[in-house]
Amino acid sequence: MPSPSEERRPASQQGMRRQNLSVVLGTVAEYGPLSRADVAARTGLTRAAVSSLVVALHRSALVVELGPAPSGRVGRPGNALVLSTQGPAGLGLEVGVEHLAACVVDLTGQIRAQARVAAANRGRPAAEALAELAVLADGVVQQAVALGLRPAGAVLAVPGLVDSASGVVVRAANLGWRDLRLPESLLGLRLEAENEANLGALAELWKGGPGDFVHVSAEAGIGAALVVGGRLFRGARGFAGELGHVPVHPEGPVCACGARGCLEQYAGEEAVLAAAGLPDASGDWVALLAKRAVEGAAPVREALDQAGSALGTALAGAVNLVDPEAVVLGGAYAELGEWLLPSMRRELAARVTVRPWDTDALSVSTLGRGGPLLGAALVTVRRILDDPSTVGA
Amino acid sequence: MPSPSEERRPASQQGMRRQNLSVVLGTVAEYGPLSRADVAARTGLTRAAVSSLVVALHRSALVVELGPAPSGRVGRPGNALVLSTQGPAGLGLEVGVEHLAACVVDLTGQIRAQARVAAANRGRPAAEALAELAVLADGVVQQAVALGLRPAGAVLAVPGLVDSASGVVVRAANLGWRDLRLPESLLGLRLEAENEANLGALAELWKGGPGDFVHVSAEAGIGAALVVGGRLFRGARGFAGELGHVPVHPEGPVCACGARGCLEQYAGEEAVLAAAGLPDASGDWVALLAKRAVEGAAPVREALDQAGSALGTALAGAVNLVDPEAVVLGGAYAELGEWLLPSMRRELAARVTVRPWDTDALSVSTLGRGGPLLGAALVTVRRILDDPSTVGA
Repeated sequence: MPSPSEERRPASQQGMRRQNLSVVLGTVAEYGPLSRADVAARTGLTRAAVSSLVVALHRSALVVELGPAPSGRVGRPGNALVLSTQGPAGLGLEVGVEHLAACVVDLTGQIRAQARVAAANRGRPAAEALAELAVLADGVVQQAVALGLRPAGAVLAVPGLVDSASGVVVRAANLGWRDLRLPESLLGLRLEAENEANLGALAELWKGGPGDFVHVSAEAGIGAALVVGGRLFRGARGFAGELGHVPVHPEGPVCACGARGCLEQYAGEEAVLAAAGLPDASGDWVALLAKRAVEGAAPVREALDQAGSALGTALAGAVNLVDPEAVVLGGAYAELGEWLLPSMRRELAARVTVRPWDTDALSVSTLGRGGPLLGAALVTVRRILDDPSTVGA
Repeated sequence: MPSPSEERRPASQQGMRRQNLSVVLGTVAEYGPLSRADVAARTGLTRAAVSSLVVALHRSALVVELGPAPSGRVGRPGNALVLSTQGPAGLGLEVGVEHLAACVVDLTGQIRAQARVAAANRGRPAAEALAELAVLADGVVQQAVALGLRPAGAVLAVPGLVDSASGVVVRAANLGWRDLRLPESLLGLRLEAENEANLGALAELWKGGPGDFVHVSAEAGIGAALVVGGRLFRGARGFAGELGHVPVHPEGPVCACGARGCLEQYAGEEAVLAAAGLPDASGDWVALLAKRAVEGAAPVREALDQAGSALGTALAGAVNLVDPEAVVLGGAYAELGEWLLPSMRRELAARVTVRPWDTDALSVSTLGRGGPLLGAALVTVRRILDDPSTVGA
């Protein structure tokens, strides 16, 4: 028997107020500075309703009034509302294979405090890495607090598979983490973890990217994330985006995952370094490849061209399947865009033919390596904007 | 600047009533027969609100009352509400390469009237095919009307790319349709078109399938559709699901699409018939292959095994990328399941390894070829259940 696909929850007065708080805050976020009258005009809410909602938003330190706004209208000019750059904020954290990082972002999405240190996290006990991260984060939070900010939640970017519902890092091969349950809080803030490729994609989205795209990055292994209709696409069990194990040449070399010819065998760290004649490179391999490519090293350029072909082939399958508006090359890979893009574009043009595909729909992220950390901090900010009622007065 | 991802629309009293009509109707659809008191208990709405909403639903012939329901409660037993099997209904239409079909489905999802005729539609003028279809549909609608049903909309299943927003069939290669604008109405009903693979997937979903799956079928060419979170996943421009042009062997034979080594080159009609030693087969090729495979023809079984391998490889990429709960083999391919499934399962098991994959997550649809037509009829029914306010009294 058919049943509606919507959640079957009756609408309530309380739900209406919550939704309208979000409508007003979102309108201020997108179009501010705005007077109350402007907010009423843009939202279709009455001026009385807007005023009551603004009082609540003001009490939660989510909006501030800048003083009289210039107005073309007859009558008393209204005070101009903008998002508060003090008050609630988001704390982003990152454990990379070779670094730790933390940042605080305000409601407008600006980074207000940050720190990053080199750290050899490969195979390091998780508790030790997290303890060092907590110290780093504490310093960043103190800076933010001095600026009048109040982080409301912490999100940790992890280069691995995260079960975000349970807060368990299922597997982060390059850190050596497996089935790791993270502490529920850090510095008194609720702590959540998320895959770094997902967070990089969210940062791209929230910093004005398209609403439907495939985001490809490399930290350790190839990460991809799908954004669909302005939301992260997680898949049925949260495992979506495993582009690295899409078969490119089904009879190709055996991958660490056990299958043959996965994308990682052609465009992953080891494969590219081997093809470039740098099998023993360590440390920041992307920076090394970029440096050599700039210097004109033919084997490096050739290796990147081949990696781009494999990426383009796998992405052609992805584009045919999920029909994104765009493909974004982000994370550390963004630094290799100059040498990866031509062959990626060639394969996409050759293999996405049953519907229109614009070469420029593949582009390089401007956030690059900073994406995941920024995305981690923005998660909390976005949550506040989506449901301001979660923030206390 | 960040902005909320939700549509920014204030909640209204009118919107609340619409939503609550859907909540009540959906609850009756899923759990009926139910008394008004049961509906109130299940939905959290007051009995007074439920009664007022039921009056409106009754007036639109969407629910009927069966008379006193047995009740374990003290007090007067309530009348049992069920979906009406008279009143509003959905008309489904189908233009296949070699057939035309129509059916009417009532609110409970049962087919109440149907007809199917053989028709050589390959290269036939669209107007001629649609005129014959209209005659067939008229007969089916008359049967339905005699049963007290009142079709409220018509949806046409087309084996091709449909821009469902504009109602244009962009391309249906096997019919020879290109940029065809369909008439806006048929038999006085609003007419919409939709890709038949999408409709097959929706039928699977609405007949109790999982909420997240990839549906693979073959009519002419390989069609796939993604269902995500209980909804059809269309992609940014409505082109999602082009599994047939996912690269399987990047240096393989040239496909009609211009690319090399697409899935259709290994598992499409022509490729399978050629591999099976039946390059000149015409008519119902799937039925022919099934018959020969049953008879034990080794080349046919071998050809299907190879096609299954290619399907499995392409689907492994899809599973790694979109993380569905399940993969369903539907449409005409369902009849070949016995010979396709083993190699499909083998490839999926070998290539989906970074997260758990259950062999049984690949299954064969029980709807088979009937899926698209049923899905077409159900679109209208589902729309009524989702927003009963669209149906007049």
